[in-house]
Amino acid sequence: MKMELSCPMPKLDFDLITLGHGSGGILTHKLLDAGVFDLLKNDKLSEQHDGAILELSGESAFTTDSFVINPIFFPGGNIGELAVYGTVNDLAMCGAIPKYLSLSFILEEGLAMEEFWKILVSIKGAAESAGVQIVTGDTKVVDKGKGDKIFINTTGIGSVHSKSNISVNNIKAGDSIIVSDQLARHGIAIMSVRSGLEFETDIESDTKNLSKVVQSSIEKFGSDIHVLRDATRGGVATVLKEMAEKRNLGMDLEYKQIPVNESVQGACEMLGLDPMYVANEGVFVSIVSNEIAQEYVDFLKRDEATSSASIIGTVTDKHPKQVIMTSAIGGKRALTMLPGEQLPRIC
Amino acid sequence: MKMELSCPMPKLDFDLITLGHGSGGILTHKLLDAGVFDLLKNDKLSEQHDGAILELSGESAFTTDSFVINPIFFPGGNIGELAVYGTVNDLAMCGAIPKYLSLSFILEEGLAMEEFWKILVSIKGAAESAGVQIVTGDTKVVDKGKGDKIFINTTGIGSVHSKSNISVNNIKAGDSIIVSDQLARHGIAIMSVRSGLEFETDIESDTKNLSKVVQSSIEKFGSDIHVLRDATRGGVATVLKEMAEKRNLGMDLEYKQIPVNESVQGACEMLGLDPMYVANEGVFVSIVSNEIAQEYVDFLKRDEATSSASIIGTVTDKHPKQVIMTSAIGGKRALTMLPGEQLPRIC
Repeated sequence: MKMELSCPMPKLDFDLITLGHGSGGILTHKLLDAGVFDLLKNDKLSEQHDGAILELSGESAFTTDSFVINPIFFPGGNIGELAVYGTVNDLAMCGAIPKYLSLSFILEEGLAMEEFWKILVSIKGAAESAGVQIVTGDTKVVDKGKGDKIFINTTGIGSVHSKSNISVNNIKAGDSIIVSDQLARHGIAIMSVRSGLEFETDIESDTKNLSKVVQSSIEKFGSDIHVLRDATRGGVATVLKEMAEKRNLGMDLEYKQIPVNESVQGACEMLGLDPMYVANEGVFVSIVSNEIAQEYVDFLKRDEATSSASIIGTVTDKHPKQVIMTSAIGGKRALTMLPGEQLPRIC
Repeated sequence: MKMELSCPMPKLDFDLITLGHGSGGILTHKLLDAGVFDLLKNDKLSEQHDGAILELSGESAFTTDSFVINPIFFPGGNIGELAVYGTVNDLAMCGAIPKYLSLSFILEEGLAMEEFWKILVSIKGAAESAGVQIVTGDTKVVDKGKGDKIFINTTGIGSVHSKSNISVNNIKAGDSIIVSDQLARHGIAIMSVRSGLEFETDIESDTKNLSKVVQSSIEKFGSDIHVLRDATRGGVATVLKEMAEKRNLGMDLEYKQIPVNESVQGACEMLGLDPMYVANEGVFVSIVSNEIAQEYVDFLKRDEATSSASIIGTVTDKHPKQVIMTSAIGGKRALTMLPGEQLPRIC
């Protein structure tokens, strides 16, 4: 909020994005010089060449995501910070410290400059809070009706932590399965404002920077953290099922250990959804050595971003490829991947 | 062409892309496992983690571009190879050897799988010919009417050539200005098939890999190559005007030295366009030391990708920020940047 006050929109002689702003000519320069470069400026971006020159060494992580969320402003955030945190968190899941981002916009003709500015300010704030530099970018404009306000691609480079040894191949029977926070908040927040589906709730998206807590946990627990995965599209169930299949191992989960807050639980029941399949933007799954599991969870709980961390289950070699959930009253069911599409354009 | 024959589309139980293919769940896996991973496979992509782990050292170049070209298939190419070459060429313009690409799709619901497959095959071919590895990716699907068949983001990492010293700050009065090939073919090829504007011509887009010839020229001429810029949106005029303004130097150009083939010239006259402003996808501008200019052009001419290279002018301190074109009959006019939008969605 403070950020928005400190970055008022510059005076411009246009209110709406036009096709000419994607021409590469005078109007593109006008748009960029009018504020985009000033707002996001750093030494590398200011070069305004076709690309940025970076000094990199050692193992780097490289990841990309395009964001097409609808609506672009939602309870708890907007597409701008989502696009920064989404890629920063993917780097964190690789055991990497986020360093550099590219930022590419596909704008729809007619987008209000005021909305674009709000998104830019939020990108700036998110990049600062995640300690990542936006060093190169691109802006395209498509004709009205051929896009949807704004799509954003961010691609990130991070430097892999020297103590990190993250790989799905490290998972072994006996490992503990941990989720870092309360599930399903992002998906439910988006549904609550999706046209045709609106309902009243105070649930906000959990979009946030996970890289700080992940870095400090790798610093402390090193290679005892076997794998990290953020549970976005498809939710926690899809992520676990993917890993179980890939490693030919099973997983046993305890329903009562799964952290879901009451209003999310209520909304899920109303909508007939299982929170295990609903998208998150600030929750990751860790699979860690059983020996450090409790200490690891206690460590996570001390950080605001992961204050509801919980051990939800155990890896087993008893039922390969099967993820089995034991309910509160002792019933068992097998989880699959998300079969169809729960809610399109959730991120 | 051979590539397409050698990569027949796998048998699938769907013909069209649906929203579910962007869910992150079973349908996304079905799409990717059905052929995308197989087609593009390499060690890093096969990890299927949230990101790729790369070993990088020294100076790296980092660049991003989103491609929204309409139509997606055009004379001389399609959006797939364009997206690979576009980013590879941007890396080359930074003096870098292309190494790794990320590949991110925004698909519109209803895209024919057959079209998507053709694009993928063409991406594979382009990546191979440019010697770049696709190591990480993302697929999103938007509802029908909220996108336009397919948008592609590619983001690239390259390793800066040890003999390269490319910077707009190196430009000085007396330097020679070179274009690498015949102008305006991409823009005219797209216009010829753009709905509402169709006209008959055999002009094909010049989309191609420039990195090989750029690398070998840097190897030979090193820091005598002061700057490289590909002349895409806005054309050669916009690129030169940008650099003149940035360096507070002038440029003198000779119209009769500018390589434009006859059919392109004819189409430009018919459409009332100046080829200096029309987009290219396989042409770059070099500014080099006067001493090596002729030898450099002769070197470029021996490569098929730059066989029509020509010295088109000289940098001067006489009229700062002005790019002055002398016509065939001796008249002079000042070039500006592309003022509006000539043709939206040219790349």
